[in-house]
Amino acid sequence: MKTYLDCIPCFIRQTVDAGRHTSLDDKQQESLVRLILQEIIDMQFTDPPPVMAAKIHALIREFSNTQDPYSEIKERSNNYALELFPMLKQEVRSSPEPFITALRFSLAGNVIDFGAASTVRDETIRRTLQNAREAHLPQHEINALKRAVEKAESILYIGDNAGEIVFDRLLIEEMPADRVTFAVRGHPVINDVTIADAHRSGIASIASIIDSGSSAPGILLSECSKAFQQTFHDADLIIAKGQGNYESLSEADATITFLLMAKCPVIAGDIGCDVGSFVIKNKC
Amino acid sequence: MKTYLDCIPCFIRQTVDAGRHTSLDDKQQESLVRLILQEIIDMQFTDPPPVMAAKIHALIREFSNTQDPYSEIKERSNNYALELFPMLKQEVRSSPEPFITALRFSLAGNVIDFGAASTVRDETIRRTLQNAREAHLPQHEINALKRAVEKAESILYIGDNAGEIVFDRLLIEEMPADRVTFAVRGHPVINDVTIADAHRSGIASIASIIDSGSSAPGILLSECSKAFQQTFHDADLIIAKGQGNYESLSEADATITFLLMAKCPVIAGDIGCDVGSFVIKNKC
Repeated sequence: MKTYLDCIPCFIRQTVDAGRHTSLDDKQQESLVRLILQEIIDMQFTDPPPVMAAKIHALIREFSNTQDPYSEIKERSNNYALELFPMLKQEVRSSPEPFITALRFSLAGNVIDFGAASTVRDETIRRTLQNAREAHLPQHEINALKRAVEKAESILYIGDNAGEIVFDRLLIEEMPADRVTFAVRGHPVINDVTIADAHRSGIASIASIIDSGSSAPGILLSECSKAFQQTFHDADLIIAKGQGNYESLSEADATITFLLMAKCPVIAGDIGCDVGSFVIKNKC
Repeated sequence: MKTYLDCIPCFIRQTVDAGRHTSLDDKQQESLVRLILQEIIDMQFTDPPPVMAAKIHALIREFSNTQDPYSEIKERSNNYALELFPMLKQEVRSSPEPFITALRFSLAGNVIDFGAASTVRDETIRRTLQNAREAHLPQHEINALKRAVEKAESILYIGDNAGEIVFDRLLIEEMPADRVTFAVRGHPVINDVTIADAHRSGIASIASIIDSGSSAPGILLSECSKAFQQTFHDADLIIAKGQGNYESLSEADATITFLLMAKCPVIAGDIGCDVGSFVIKNKC
């Protein structure tokens, strides 16, 4: 997906947010914003948003001398999701359709996206879980995904955000997990998952883990490690969670199932759905 | 109120929106965004947001050679509000507290703010009217406003947005309207009211009209006409509608009642209320 002009305000909001998560004082935060405004002026807008976001967040880390501005946020998100996990797991187990129930929770987890919003309250997560329980999901897409999961010898599940990853575990536990490789980012960026979150969520105990080798908040294949590229090309089924993975892979030459919650008008417009929708999109 | 860093993304969103309301093609809209990014880099962030917004929207008008990018939006907002007017007027008339009911509708009208949001749907307006009917409003502030209205020989009611102005009419009709001067902007900016809206809404038939003499989406007194400044200083009571008037007058040396709906976290934070709240704030 290309970068729309509407993405520019969002990059600047992310910069303002990220600056506050560092030890920069008010004056330095203002300088950071001016630096990023200049950087954006000098950028091409033809690449997908994660290309620009990767550059912007690298500059934020460098300017603020902070390796991971969102580390506390990620910890809090993981902790809250892990608090909910036993109850949700029980609900999946007792459900007549465990795969679909787990899929609903995994979709809801995508609300924990600090790229799309400055704050995500616990109440918002609970309400989104409830919305996902009640949402009308496209049955033919679910059936196609279920069949693909059953058939696949190798599944690459590309994670998105901390906290969300705990809900992804529910879904992966309804798959033959020994065939699943879970992908995380190669470096902290926004609140995207890294190897630490794969361990914290428990996914590292049930599936193989690979990192993308890149600090982009999405998958820019040419910037990924050779090992990741190989896994990507060899996978029988790729499941890509969240907006950043959609933005970067929506035009990739691969069979991918996108699972996400459309949280901004740009994504919703590109997909052709309403803001707030849960999206299951099998792309051949 | 000073400009917060959080205001910067909003200025750029306004630029993207405004560009679309002109005849600029995609490439030219991108150039416009780059121009405004550069302009913001060169600005001081110490002034209230309407100072920056005034400069930005003047540049947008100049670059796009469009005197009023929001003219269609304003027409549509006025038309929709006028459709609702007879029903709301009836509701005010049959209410045990006509002044308070009209005040509620006037507060709800402030949702029609294309500075704070890219789109305002009819459904959002109807829902906001319902929220305003049910909202808990501070009784002591209402009482103070009622007393001040009764006592004042001259009331300056500073309008905010097209569409909203029709709901303001409901409130002005519950005042001694012959003592009211209704202020509009001196030049089109965003969807703010101008003299044309004062006529379209019917307010010009019941109250005196003055324009600020300025194209700022708020009241920057030093930039206003001498006539406006005189009216401002002579008024026994000033009622200022909306965020832009609050942003520019919150620290003015005058007795002002602010009426608005807090639509962004910055304003809500400055006032100390939740986003979505209806605010009645008597400032001495």
